[in-house]
Amino acid sequence: MNTRRLRAPIVLPADPACSVIRDGVVDIDDDGRIAYCGPAAGAPSPEGALVTTLPGILLPGLVNTHAHSPMTLLRGMGGELPLLRWLREVIWPAEANLRPDDVRVGMTLGSLEMLRHGVTTSAEMYFHAEQMTEAVLATGGRVLLGSPIIDLPGLDWHAMITETERWIAADGLRFGPGERVELSYAAHSAYMLPEEALRLTAESAAARGALVQIHVAEAPDEDARQRAEHGSVPLLLDKVGMLDGRIIAAHAVHLSDEDIALFAARGVGVAHCPGSNAKLASGIARLTDLRAASVPIGLGTDGPASNDDLDLWEEVQLTAMLARLSTQDSTVLGARDALLLGTRGGAEALGRNDIGALETGRWADLVHVDVDDPAFATGLDVPDEQLLANLVWGAGSRRVRDVWVAGEQVVGEGESLRVDRDKVQHGVAEAAARIRG
Amino acid sequence: MNTRRLRAPIVLPADPACSVIRDGVVDIDDDGRIAYCGPAAGAPSPEGALVTTLPGILLPGLVNTHAHSPMTLLRGMGGELPLLRWLREVIWPAEANLRPDDVRVGMTLGSLEMLRHGVTTSAEMYFHAEQMTEAVLATGGRVLLGSPIIDLPGLDWHAMITETERWIAADGLRFGPGERVELSYAAHSAYMLPEEALRLTAESAAARGALVQIHVAEAPDEDARQRAEHGSVPLLLDKVGMLDGRIIAAHAVHLSDEDIALFAARGVGVAHCPGSNAKLASGIARLTDLRAASVPIGLGTDGPASNDDLDLWEEVQLTAMLARLSTQDSTVLGARDALLLGTRGGAEALGRNDIGALETGRWADLVHVDVDDPAFATGLDVPDEQLLANLVWGAGSRRVRDVWVAGEQVVGEGESLRVDRDKVQHGVAEAAARIRG
Repeated sequence: MNTRRLRAPIVLPADPACSVIRDGVVDIDDDGRIAYCGPAAGAPSPEGALVTTLPGILLPGLVNTHAHSPMTLLRGMGGELPLLRWLREVIWPAEANLRPDDVRVGMTLGSLEMLRHGVTTSAEMYFHAEQMTEAVLATGGRVLLGSPIIDLPGLDWHAMITETERWIAADGLRFGPGERVELSYAAHSAYMLPEEALRLTAESAAARGALVQIHVAEAPDEDARQRAEHGSVPLLLDKVGMLDGRIIAAHAVHLSDEDIALFAARGVGVAHCPGSNAKLASGIARLTDLRAASVPIGLGTDGPASNDDLDLWEEVQLTAMLARLSTQDSTVLGARDALLLGTRGGAEALGRNDIGALETGRWADLVHVDVDDPAFATGLDVPDEQLLANLVWGAGSRRVRDVWVAGEQVVGEGESLRVDRDKVQHGVAEAAARIRG
Repeated sequence: MNTRRLRAPIVLPADPACSVIRDGVVDIDDDGRIAYCGPAAGAPSPEGALVTTLPGILLPGLVNTHAHSPMTLLRGMGGELPLLRWLREVIWPAEANLRPDDVRVGMTLGSLEMLRHGVTTSAEMYFHAEQMTEAVLATGGRVLLGSPIIDLPGLDWHAMITETERWIAADGLRFGPGERVELSYAAHSAYMLPEEALRLTAESAAARGALVQIHVAEAPDEDARQRAEHGSVPLLLDKVGMLDGRIIAAHAVHLSDEDIALFAARGVGVAHCPGSNAKLASGIARLTDLRAASVPIGLGTDGPASNDDLDLWEEVQLTAMLARLSTQDSTVLGARDALLLGTRGGAEALGRNDIGALETGRWADLVHVDVDDPAFATGLDVPDEQLLANLVWGAGSRRVRDVWVAGEQVVGEGESLRVDRDKVQHGVAEAAARIRG
């Protein structure tokens, strides 16, 4: 078996301890999976392997557990309105003008942008699954894709479930080179779907081992209504069987102790979206309580129309800041824990043990952060804690230079090796102008 | 008079309305001050002027109203400890090892770093004023500099006041090309100084028209003690006469309604430091109440040992997020208001009406943001609100390419035109290794 080897002064495998490996290597097999990750000193003989030596830090690609990335087309539109007016007066009318090709170009930009930030996987809820898939296969990113199931006038939620079933039957649950695309169910929310739709979605997904993505307890007023009617959204989702299968609850801001215990008992994944929840004034989720209960947690950007550049490193930073403010304890959520939430934690929350960490057998989704930056001026020869702090709090996405997905390099020197960014940006400009009308 | 003219598709003068000028120009006179800023169509005849056409957005350099920038030397050190242990066990022992030359190289990196982010001015509290000055004159940044006045064993606060007086007598309150350096008084805090020291500092500063920088009501426990003893720190500062002159209160997290009214009545400037206050779990300052009372407010990064890359754009974003969370209102603090806090507001809070905006007579401290970025993919031909949102929430510092201070270009293509970043980073690495011991 031919193996490629990446060697770097610092390798962060995102193991549960968030170890720092000095002079480490990552071996990638022909399938694009990790064959070895560890110290160069203990590595298998590199005979026959093509060795690339990198000057910086190698870590797993970040995992964005909640996004609507084609909304790059609507970035910054009407964002000074209150949430419901913003949706009704700006976003929904604009989305009604979207053509399938618009979604493709918008998703291409979003995917490209995430890859440049070192975010290799995103869980997406958006219409036009075919164009979404094309976009991600073009940039070389990885996606868990769900086409929204939602009860709106003129739309048929039953047909939406059937459509997802048909896609999975046609393409399989995972497909594409390096299994880059996973299909999933995107039930919008308890407040936009009748109980029967939630139940049928849960049954359909469970029968196929598929993930259900769903918005849970995001805005306070919406949540209060659900709580009055059903006890709570988690209780409703449990009643319809949705917590028995793979599920990721996006936002999950307004949870009671009982809701958290229920999530923990059922292993419900949470997509924590601190930036979106702050910009839209939805609230601060109970992150430290969720962590204490061992709920699987990842981070999400939400859509770029509201939070704005799909840079998951900002969520990593913000998660720590808000957790510390909430607990009045500056030792809560250090750089190690915050980084794990953005990588391994995201994979776990999505029910994926094949990404999010540099471990033998997982996909080689990798990021190389160059250290030619003031954030690393004190050098790499500092204690592990300091190095992690410099990366997580200081550098963030700024020096992401090279990115691999399933062993294939898709970003080099900070630019896509797959698609022409200039052309994509022009495509977005054209589509956005038409959508604005 | 020879004039240089910069022309750009978008000019943001940071006037009180935060106007967006399409096809604008900024004329710079031989002294480095702004001769004109407005639409190209209404500009004076450019005869004899050297015209440079830029592709992006021109705006005033951001103003960092509270920093300890030489702490680049200590970036990321021991940050997982509680605040007081962090100071006592890590930061203070490390600072005790600092040589004057270390401070110069640390400040050089901090200043360089800020300039690359488009932050042209910072208010600094740090020891070794001579080396601080040398550093800023080397990078070409602008500084309001105060050497700490603090009551610690072995130190003599009285001599510290006298030393500041001596500096001002020797160099003048403002000096250097483009008046880049302003000397000021850096009274550490009410909890680290006796009342008499606060009184003498206030008198000495007032006699010279100098600014007093001081930490106010940062950590809850420290503030509670002051409140028990003096009613509140603002009341104490009023009693000793410190609110009568120019003053900037850094942090000001824990203020009562009466404190805010007092600050408003006396025109006390506030340096709002949301990132530091979050990372250190100090709390969320009452920004919207301060704004409602018309207190002059700017933003501050605090030191890079705790908040970590001196990027004031992150404070701009965080200020809005925390204000929205605090008020549960997503319409609080739009992109316009947030940007003004980082520019014009900062200048006002420091008592400086000669920076922070592109207005005739002010210093030509300018930033050019390139728009070749996904954040601007929807184009420049979008409504003003959307353009500002794309800049402030989407792009931030990422595409700052060119920076001028007092009309002199000091950053080009994202790199210092004055100092060799690589050499400075190596200097920091060497000093940091020795300090760690």
